[in-house]
Amino acid sequence: MTTAIACLAAQESALPKLQPFTSANAQTPFLATKETKWHRKICGSLEEAIQRSGLQDGMTISFHHAFREGDKVVNTVIDTLARLGFKNLTLASSSLLNCHDPLVEHIKTGVITQIYTSGMRGKLAEAVSNGLMRNPVQIHSHGGRVHLLQTGELKIDVAFLGVACCDEFGNANGSHGKLSCGSLGYAKVDADYARQVLLLTEELVDFPNRPVSISQDRVDLIVKLDQVGDPSLISVGAARVTNNPRELLIARRATDVIEHSGYFIDGFSLQTGSGAASTAATRFLEERMNCKAIKASFALGGITGGIADLHKKGLIKAVVDVQSFDKDAAESLRTSSAHLEISANEYANPTSKAAYVDRVNVVILSALEIDVDFNVNVITGSDGVMRGASGGHCDVAAAADLTIVVAPLVRSRIPTVVRRVTTRLTPGESIDVLVTDHGIAVNPTRPEVEKRLRDARLPIMTIDELREKAVALTGEPEPLEFTERIVGIVRYRDGSVIDVVRQVKG
Amino acid sequence: MTTAIACLAAQESALPKLQPFTSANAQTPFLATKETKWHRKICGSLEEAIQRSGLQDGMTISFHHAFREGDKVVNTVIDTLARLGFKNLTLASSSLLNCHDPLVEHIKTGVITQIYTSGMRGKLAEAVSNGLMRNPVQIHSHGGRVHLLQTGELKIDVAFLGVACCDEFGNANGSHGKLSCGSLGYAKVDADYARQVLLLTEELVDFPNRPVSISQDRVDLIVKLDQVGDPSLISVGAARVTNNPRELLIARRATDVIEHSGYFIDGFSLQTGSGAASTAATRFLEERMNCKAIKASFALGGITGGIADLHKKGLIKAVVDVQSFDKDAAESLRTSSAHLEISANEYANPTSKAAYVDRVNVVILSALEIDVDFNVNVITGSDGVMRGASGGHCDVAAAADLTIVVAPLVRSRIPTVVRRVTTRLTPGESIDVLVTDHGIAVNPTRPEVEKRLRDARLPIMTIDELREKAVALTGEPEPLEFTERIVGIVRYRDGSVIDVVRQVKG
Repeated sequence: MTTAIACLAAQESALPKLQPFTSANAQTPFLATKETKWHRKICGSLEEAIQRSGLQDGMTISFHHAFREGDKVVNTVIDTLARLGFKNLTLASSSLLNCHDPLVEHIKTGVITQIYTSGMRGKLAEAVSNGLMRNPVQIHSHGGRVHLLQTGELKIDVAFLGVACCDEFGNANGSHGKLSCGSLGYAKVDADYARQVLLLTEELVDFPNRPVSISQDRVDLIVKLDQVGDPSLISVGAARVTNNPRELLIARRATDVIEHSGYFIDGFSLQTGSGAASTAATRFLEERMNCKAIKASFALGGITGGIADLHKKGLIKAVVDVQSFDKDAAESLRTSSAHLEISANEYANPTSKAAYVDRVNVVILSALEIDVDFNVNVITGSDGVMRGASGGHCDVAAAADLTIVVAPLVRSRIPTVVRRVTTRLTPGESIDVLVTDHGIAVNPTRPEVEKRLRDARLPIMTIDELREKAVALTGEPEPLEFTERIVGIVRYRDGSVIDVVRQVKG
Repeated sequence: MTTAIACLAAQESALPKLQPFTSANAQTPFLATKETKWHRKICGSLEEAIQRSGLQDGMTISFHHAFREGDKVVNTVIDTLARLGFKNLTLASSSLLNCHDPLVEHIKTGVITQIYTSGMRGKLAEAVSNGLMRNPVQIHSHGGRVHLLQTGELKIDVAFLGVACCDEFGNANGSHGKLSCGSLGYAKVDADYARQVLLLTEELVDFPNRPVSISQDRVDLIVKLDQVGDPSLISVGAARVTNNPRELLIARRATDVIEHSGYFIDGFSLQTGSGAASTAATRFLEERMNCKAIKASFALGGITGGIADLHKKGLIKAVVDVQSFDKDAAESLRTSSAHLEISANEYANPTSKAAYVDRVNVVILSALEIDVDFNVNVITGSDGVMRGASGGHCDVAAAADLTIVVAPLVRSRIPTVVRRVTTRLTPGESIDVLVTDHGIAVNPTRPEVEKRLRDARLPIMTIDELREKAVALTGEPEPLEFTERIVGIVRYRDGSVIDVVRQVKG
């Protein structure tokens, strides 16, 4: 063979440099024994997995948030990293929740020195808002996170991905097994982009595991843990069912808006998110769809049991699921072949080759504040402290034909409709209609929508009128006080900076 | 915002350079109108698609071979490229078949000047064997092709991927629609690696199309063609059903070998490929599995109707399908949730993070020649002319626990068992058992297998005895005559050169 290669070299100097064959596993020694061929990814402990991943101080680690308030992966891994003495890590989690309060200590001790996340809540958010971190937190949308991965600003060294079950080659899903969380839409992206992909699973199942949400050819290492998550806590705070009359009123009005918007036609597509009013609106929509014999082509997004129910009843043909908010949604993903699991790149990245958000006709979104230019804040509360998440808000708001924001006009005696939002996350140009318990405002950029809603005798007001009404109820709120110091940077979905969060005056 | 960014820059010099937000679609102008947001991938003609792909002289174009002898994509595209005046292109097709004879002209005129393929047949192979091309053809295995993509030796500029159906975002599959070819396992890889991915479809279906074999976020351009393939020709030559008594005898003996090899236990896994004897062996296996109450955990590979039938009967729990050889296999993929569609990287790449071949217990493979060291030739015929394909032969042979080669001892009065194969594709170290119509030979590296087969009273001989028997029947064959010129380079799955094919003396 060596002679033949020499002869080749003479014949064709432009050919790639070729090596002669020696033996079947010369270049793949790990395939030479069944022990390494079959079991080489399995680690005896998390410590071993971390060591084998090559993680070093200063690197970036990632997590997904499909287990939501039930997540045990972030705390388990970062506790372990702290114990092993790691410092100066960048934490890139697709989101952070109340259960991640223990991170405060790890930031104080320098284990974590930079954070990329869709949002944060609880004590962590409070501490960061009060100046805990030297580096401001980078707050991105679900689509924008993938954009940051594609531009290379965010480079994941090791992804720690909790899954419901996997086989020893790494074929994993979130929809089967005891710890079902449904879609692994955010984890899929990290499995594609991370230098090393480490699965954490409660169940190691027989090969070949199926369905395959994360494929064996994306996985480097596997650790079996006693607890990856607590399934009973997944739906906490996500898809709350409400009996609050004010929320039901808002939901009913949002449904009226959809019905008369001009977009309520057979084959329309929708996203309803996870707020209480959104979830209730899904129920009211069922009546209207039945009444007018309208079926939806698909529902997108974080999926709730309410959407799964309409799908089961044949009112929504396909469900396109980046995250399952409750066990009914996860059950639907497990059982319906028209319930698709998609990645965050397929969901919402503006620079993806195509994103499902761009096919959404109608979306209902929530808000902590909305201002007279329709800019929305879902990040900071009325005290200026971070308490929410960017999520897919600005992604789907920008993309949908009709973006409806639902909110009570006043919360705890503080107006929701304000002159200027504390933190701008979604620009007003993306918002078409605001539905409150005191009236509906349509963005002046959408006169044709306003006309249709007026024709349907819905209670339309200007957004200034709504703000005045709020002020009449509560009085003009005291302006919040902040220091000059920036603690959070709000990145728009394309990576640009749409606002910053400043340290609250404590 | 500009002030805040300046302030940020002062606060943190180590942060990435950030741009201020201006408007929702400032950086994604194609999302600003529904026309471009929804329809930007659709091209009015193949010519338009080629122009928009940015293809230039000297670049690499790729194709997949799921439509096999029914493929119309390669010829249609390359005829068009020739008409448009393209020159000096590298053709990287996952394989080439008899239907691709028209390539001969495009090579003569310099449109195609380099080929990477798993194999070639017919007039193209004959012309290349007779010195048509200045650059030798690079022959790779199905797994090895992905390896070459990963190392960067093979860089695809534009992938032209025929699909059965897709929506206008590019969600595509091969298993639904009029032109069902089943799995798109080879196309999936090109969709992941190509700089530009161009789909050619006969059917544009409603959004969102499902199942999704190639996702919208991998697709750049879409062209609707009148004919992408002829489904009636997909199974030609692939999974022939035989009544030939000699082939049936070999098939029955191969089944005996499996039964007594030590690997025929509940939960075993298998791959049977597409030769007539392999296909027949699948049928015989059914009796033995029923008789001994043995079920297979999975069957892998190019999938035939025979495998699909055992799956339907519950004898094979899961089917793992990189290519569907006939309409029954495609039908099974369409209807069974335990029939998985996998990419060539998941199938057989030795440097994939995991390949299904590494879990195969028993495989039946064919051979054009096998020598006394068990080296196998599936590339060149008895006249020294190329007539076959590497396929997954060396991939699964290396990986499986028990690799069985089936072949008639003599073909057209020429021995199949020879002193030295004309072209070595799969090294003898990967072959465990040879089954012929005149006896069975076991590789001396597997004495435990030989003992089990002898204990079962199977007709075991040495491979030298088989060769002598062949020579006794036919006489010693005349040695083939070749020139010094190398026309093909046989790449082992890890990229190394295991043999070369020389120009035949015409």
